[in-house]
Amino acid sequence: MDRDAIFPAEPADTVSGTEDAAPARHAVTILVCSTCRDETGADAHPRAGALLAADARRAATGDDIRIRTVECLGNCKRRLSAALLRDGCWSYVFGDLGPDSGADLVAGARLFSTATDGLIPWRGRPDSLKRGLVARIPPLAFTKDLP
Amino acid sequence: MDRDAIFPAEPADTVSGTEDAAPARHAVTILVCSTCRDETGADAHPRAGALLAADARRAATGDDIRIRTVECLGNCKRRLSAALLRDGCWSYVFGDLGPDSGADLVAGARLFSTATDGLIPWRGRPDSLKRGLVARIPPLAFTKDLP
Repeated sequence: MDRDAIFPAEPADTVSGTEDAAPARHAVTILVCSTCRDETGADAHPRAGALLAADARRAATGDDIRIRTVECLGNCKRRLSAALLRDGCWSYVFGDLGPDSGADLVAGARLFSTATDGLIPWRGRPDSLKRGLVARIPPLAFTKDLP
Repeated sequence: MDRDAIFPAEPADTVSGTEDAAPARHAVTILVCSTCRDETGADAHPRAGALLAADARRAATGDDIRIRTVECLGNCKRRLSAALLRDGCWSYVFGDLGPDSGADLVAGARLFSTATDGLIPWRGRPDSLKRGLVARIPPLAFTKDLP
């Protein structure tokens, strides 16, 4: 299983404009599939995905973390899904989440917000965001032309 | 299973500058996981992913389709993987591919290149890109704020 440690680090895109020792924070978007059903597959509303979006919003209070929804991330085989997105960084999709995974998503987003290599750090990542990794897509600048 | 038909169409970003009836084509990138192993999990080189990248390049000859590689798309549970990317459109990850899936990826990229709603059309998509859909991520402009 990927541990996100393979890809070489890219130059940091952080901006350090103060004497503050705190790392620069960048906006991260948590994108929740609002149409995802729970493990029973029931059509009941609110859907498990909508509950997860609300749970993430509660957990993100006070953070520079946006919660948005989308109708289907195409990951229906791995059930309840969400993505973590940050400009210029890798995009991540996670599955096998629950309606109460909001705090885990926010913890992952906080880690992501201060990353300097475009990746969500593996260390400190909630277990659900290790086991639940479905896919990650790099920005094109991180890819290679064929030799 | 998602059929990519749920999300409402966005305004087309195509540019029609001629009298030509052919639809406008946009650059599409096929991003192949060059470190993916074959179904035996063997460490032999070239890896199945590298063979798939070469197969896609052969199939794309003459097209405005870029083939690039990356080390790990994080989709190790669904074996040999590739992504299709187009600026301003959804990003797609596919798994369960083979080293000879290059023509399918190029067929999907050609469909994508003329799409006017940001999605790879379902109709005409090779079966491997229907069954093998792992996840898709929208551009943020296609997402919704929580109500």
